[in-house]
Order: sequence, then C-alpha cells, then structure tokens
Amino acid sequence: VQREAFEALDRSDPLAPLRDKFLLPPGVINLDGNSLGSLPRSTAARVSRVIEKEWGEDLITSWNRHDWIGMPQRVGDKIARLIGAGAGEVVVTESTSINLFKVLAVTLKMRPGRRAIVSDAENFPTDLYMAEGLTKLLGQDYILRLVPTHDLRHALGADTAVLMLTQVNFRTGALHDMAALTAAAHAAGALAIWDLSHTAGALPVDLDGAQADFAIGCGYKYLNGGPGAPAFVYAAARHHGQAAQPLYGWLGHDAPFEFATGYRPATGIRQYVVSTPSILALAALEEGVDLLLQAGLSELRAKSQALTEAFIALVEARCAGLGLSLATPRDPARRGSQVSFAHEHSYAVMQALIARGVIGDFRAPDLLRFGFSPLYIRNVDVWDAVEALRDVLATSAWQRPEFQMRAAVT
Amino acid sequence: VQREAFEALDRSDPLAPLRDKFLLPPGVINLDGNSLGSLPRSTAARVSRVIEKEWGEDLITSWNRHDWIGMPQRVGDKIARLIGAGAGEVVVTESTSINLFKVLAVTLKMRPGRRAIVSDAENFPTDLYMAEGLTKLLGQDYILRLVPTHDLRHALGADTAVLMLTQVNFRTGALHDMAALTAAAHAAGALAIWDLSHTAGALPVDLDGAQADFAIGCGYKYLNGGPGAPAFVYAAARHHGQAAQPLYGWLGHDAPFEFATGYRPATGIRQYVVSTPSILALAALEEGVDLLLQAGLSELRAKSQALTEAFIALVEARCAGLGLSLATPRDPARRGSQVSFAHEHSYAVMQALIARGVIGDFRAPDLLRFGFSPLYIRNVDVWDAVEALRDVLATSAWQRPEFQMRAAVT
Repeated sequence: VQREAFEALDRSDPLAPLRDKFLLPPGVINLDGNSLGSLPRSTAARVSRVIEKEWGEDLITSWNRHDWIGMPQRVGDKIARLIGAGAGEVVVTESTSINLFKVLAVTLKMRPGRRAIVSDAENFPTDLYMAEGLTKLLGQDYILRLVPTHDLRHALGADTAVLMLTQVNFRTGALHDMAALTAAAHAAGALAIWDLSHTAGALPVDLDGAQADFAIGCGYKYLNGGPGAPAFVYAAARHHGQAAQPLYGWLGHDAPFEFATGYRPATGIRQYVVSTPSILALAALEEGVDLLLQAGLSELRAKSQALTEAFIALVEARCAGLGLSLATPRDPARRGSQVSFAHEHSYAVMQALIARGVIGDFRAPDLLRFGFSPLYIRNVDVWDAVEALRDVLATSAWQRPEFQMRAAVT
Repeated sequence: VQREAFEALDRSDPLAPLRDKFLLPPGVINLDGNSLGSLPRSTAARVSRVIEKEWGEDLITSWNRHDWIGMPQRVGDKIARLIGAGAGEVVVTESTSINLFKVLAVTLKMRPGRRAIVSDAENFPTDLYMAEGLTKLLGQDYILRLVPTHDLRHALGADTAVLMLTQVNFRTGALHDMAALTAAAHAAGALAIWDLSHTAGALPVDLDGAQADFAIGCGYKYLNGGPGAPAFVYAAARHHGQAAQPLYGWLGHDAPFEFATGYRPATGIRQYVVSTPSILALAALEEGVDLLLQAGLSELRAKSQALTEAFIALVEARCAGLGLSLATPRDPARRGSQVSFAHEHSYAVMQALIARGVIGDFRAPDLLRFGFSPLYIRNVDVWDAVEALRDVLATSAWQRPEFQMRAAVT
C-alpha cells in the first residue's frame, strides 16, 4: 500500500468539498475532533457579526430583531435531524453535565419508588459524577449502580428507575446497541438516557426509532461548535408536559416575560432551558451544525468506517512489533468514529506525536486515542498519521525528556 | 438647566476616557445596560483571536498553551476585586441560576434540620424559581418563604437555613443593606446568599467585609460580557472544603484528568465549576471585566449617583403632569444604578422611546426602567433621554399602533 492509494480515495470522496469549509492549520492532523472539533471557515465572521452588529449596534432589541430568543430551539431542531429526533424534541442549552442532571432527576420522578440509576462502570466519568451528586443530594437510598458492560442487562431490575449510558465508550470507542438496551430497560420498567457526546455528528443515531426516553450531548466534539460550546438535550415528545426538570430557570417558564413569582413549566422542550444562553457560543455552534447538515449521515458513517478500518490495518502493518495493541472493537459496526491503541508509554508517545503535528489524546492509564471526524479528515491523513506514529515509536522519539512531563491538561 | 451644563460635567468626568473604549452606536443611548451591557471595542478582536488562532490553529493544545483551563479562576479573581472578595473566592462558570442552585444546596446541607429558604417576595423571579425547584426536588418539608421586603428580619427564625436576596431590586432599584441583613441572618443561625447581578460593576460591594457566605452574579449586565455571558459564584474562604455543591462536574473534581470513576471534590473555589466553559464567552467577559478594573469603584458609584440624581430631577421638572411617578428610592444611598418610573401605559411609552434611540426596559406591570452604566453613560445622555421621554409623552407618540403590540421579548 502506498500513499498514492489514499490520495486516490480522497479524489473520489463525496464529502471532500465539505473539508474545504474548515480552516485547517497546515502541517496539523486533528485526530482529536472527538475532544475539540476543528474550526469551520464561516464561524469567525458569524461571531464577529453577532458581536459588532447584533450586540454592539442593536443591543437588547436583538432578542427579537435577530431572534436570539429562538436560537436554543432553532439550533436544537437542526441537531434533531442528526440524531433521529423530531422537531420540538431537542433544545440547545447549558452543558452536557447540567442537562444530564435535569433528565436524571426527571426519570427518578417518573419512576417513584425505584431508587437505582444503572450505568456502565466504564461510562464517561463526568456522567457518573453527576449521577453520584444527584443521589447524594436526594438521599433516601437513591443509588448509582455501576456494572461491567457485559452485565448491564442483568443489572436492570424492579428497583431500576433509569439506565444511563454513553453510546460510544470514550476510551475504547465501543458502540452500545441503543435499540436493544433501551428495550431491555423498558422491559424492566425503567427509562433510558443516552449520552450522544461521542456519536452526534459522527454516525447516524435514531433516538425516536429506538424509543429512547431522553438524551444529551456535546456541542464541541463532532458538532464543531468550539471550545466549551453549549450542549443539547432531547426529551421524547411522549414525555413532554409530564415531570418538570427541577432546575426551574426563567427561560423554561411557560411565560418568561411575565416575571411571575411562581414557576409554571413550559409544556414543550423549552422547559429544559434554564438560563439566558450565550449567544456568541450558540452562533458558533450553529455554524458547525449547519455544515454537518450538508453531509449525508450514511456518507459520514461510511467514510468514518473506512477511515478507522484503514487506520487499524495500517497501524498493525506498519507498526508491528512496536508495542501497540488494539483496544477498539475490530468489527466496524461495533465502534464509533475513534480507534484506541494501548502502549506502555502512551502518554509520552502521544506528546511526541503531537509535536509532529498529529493531535490525538492520551487517556489513562495507557491509551492512545484517535478520533476521525469524517467531515474533515482525509484518507491521506490516515496514512500520514500512521507514518508519524511509526517514526515516533521506531526512533524512540517519545523518550525525549520534554515528552515525559505531564501538563495540567493532557 | 440647559444641555450645556451637562456637557460641562462630561468634560470634567474622570471616567470619560473609559467611554471611548466602547463601541457605541450613534444616535442610541443604552439605558438598558442592566439588562445587556454595551460592547467594549476590544471584544470583537479578542474573540476573533480566540477563534482563529487559539481554537483554529492550536486546537486542543490551547487548554494549556493559552491557559483556557485557568480562565474560570483568572476571570473570577478579577471579578473578586469588584465585589470585595479575595483571590480564590470567586470563579466564573455556568449561569447565575445554576450557580444559585449550587450555593442554595450547599447552605441547606450546612444547616441540617433547618428547612426554610427565606427571600423577598419581590426578589428576581428566576432566583425564586430556582429555590422553588430545589425545595420540590428535595421534598421533606423544605420550603421557600417569601415575605415583603420590610418583614425580612422577622421572617428569620430557628427553621431558617438561608436568607437569599438580590442586593438591588430589579424593578425599583432599591438597595438592600447587605451587612445588616447578613448579620441578621447570622444572628438567627442562618447563612446569607447575595445575588449581585444588578450590583457588580455598578457600585462597590464588600462581600468579605459584610461576612457574606455566598454570592452569585451575572456577566452580561454591568460587567459588559455580552449576551448570555457566563456568571460568577463566590464562596467565602471559610466555607471552602466543607459541604460540596451537588452538581458534581468533571472540572470541579480534585483531579479532573485522572478520569476516576468516583467524584472527589476540589477543595477550593474550583469545586463550583461543573462543565467545560465556553472559551469564546469567557474571553468576551474578560474584556468587559478588564475595562471595569480600570475604573475606581468609588468614582463609578459617585458618577452613578450623579446620573440617577440628575435623571430624577430632570424627569420631575421636564415631564411634570405627564403621568409619571417615581418608583425608586429618592435617597441615592438606598438605590442601585437604575431609576424606574411608573406610567399607566409604560409598555407603549417604552416602545416609542426605543424607537427614538433611548433604550430602556418595560417591567410589568407598569414600570419604565432606566439603567445607568457609569462606564459609558454621559451626563448629556441624561439630558437627551429626558428630552426624548418628554417628547414621547407630550406628543402622545406612544399612542401610535406599532407601539402597542407586544413582542416576544420586551
């Protein structure tokens, strides 16, 4: 296999024109788009317009004139199209963690008498922290039950209020079967919450089809909304107007501008909004989402699978004997858009790789994690990244002292 | 009194040079800076740099390289200087409402057995909604007790966990005595939470001096951080490391990058951070805060009082007999940086005034609300605003049909 073969694939890639809509720094391959997605070309101009024209000139009147007030629902409806949700089922607001708190509290209220939140022990730690915090706040024997992935079905019982899972494992990239696990939760009388942070924008999701109850997800990974972009929350239409989420914010009030003393929850998805949203951050997120809507979800998935397949094959061929072992499911249908390899010195190896312009992630204790955002990662980037990895390992470049020191953030 | 007298005051205003640091649209007077502060000149360029250089080029490495990770505490330390707090007592994160939820939950945990949250029936509705949501979530006889302003002291008792107040009444501008009410709460064995949304950046606040326990506040009013800017939260140093706030987010973990399964709260103010912050929004807020730090707080207060005094005097002189009555305390020491007048047709009057380029707020049921941000409002703006108000009232311009129709946001 030669680099030319990968260049040829890129020439026939139907998603190639969308890559040109990103500002990608020369000499850098962002295989960390599942931590921070790349920058759409249109974002800076859009945010400048929001700042200089909408905020600076039109001031408070922009809430109506530029429909700032409608943005959480407008951008939510756009994200809905990426995750198999209907209009009015998704809203952009707050953060993934805060949104998880809301939907967890709702599920506990919808299943009175049931005290257990069941999750995967390998679920994203922040999600587990939020559930832990909620159970401690509520007291009264509420518990968070963590089990190994293969025991999830057995852990669902008569005490289970909700099954809370992240669809793609943030370390290994393993993909849960959303429809089957949601059905198992329902069979046990429980509800299902899905964290789509590592799925939305990378592969098709069918929340309505899977009969999911609630979902949450991140704006700054595959949605390319920028660092700390606002998050989204999905509540199935059949649950609207039932239990209110407990963070009673003014924008979730049925009539926010009445400034009434008592809270009266909005009946639709807007009840999940708490606070005045950051319009700068929402505008940036909308640019990222708009780009994704230009791509077909099946094309995205096909390219993502081709990229991860090629990466695994090339690493195993070109880096054989250099201490790497695959930590991601080999079946492309069973993984998201990322590939992880274990290595004894993965932290230093990743630092050396980043110094070479290939940005991936270290994930404790021993993983090199590579995300493949199919919107802007080329086939030839796979080749180049593997060559850089091979060089870092074969020359022991990672042993240089500057790559050993842990920074505040890795 | 003539316009020239106000122009003369502006010529000797020590804060005048700071006005030039704002991009102010010609023909518009923003007397709504207590709803959305004006745009600092430096903000657009700063946010563009964050987007194009830090996000676009340096990608995920910016968390260290550009100290994104340190921003919530760095900007928090700057705000601390505006509100009489020490370094390490303030952090910027989430929204005012979410931060209120955190500190309310902490105070209830710190005062076990006490079940009442006491507040002013005229407190900002969102704050009341958040308290209502928390009491409903907790059940167990937790209550929110709302009383008229003059009954607050009597409402504090052996069942009171916390007194929750907004320092400046959002309708009337009346200013609570923070030190006295905090002392009264403490005398009853309760804690005190202060919402500084209508104070921070407009007048000096002395949280540490008043022995306040917790405080929260808004970034998009007098701090000029832009629409929906992130908010801040203060926890007195003596309370650090005690009860953890219950929204256990990864950035509040003692070691966020361990990705440990269990939550271990950070011991300092960082425990109040939940989620990855919007860096775009934080950068914009920092520009606004940096401008305020160039002003002296006593100069800000002096100018603010001069502006509101002049406004009241001029309105009462020039608009006599036109149906206005003052709703704000006449003693400048007892009000914040806003003035409200009641009028039978205040909604339409405000729409007509906005059409003339004088932006204020309508607040139900009958208030015209005018905020005076001393950083960029001139003495001559007071004159011009009153002349416009007089004209709208005297000519009955507000009776035109287009000013009667209520928009989604007012």
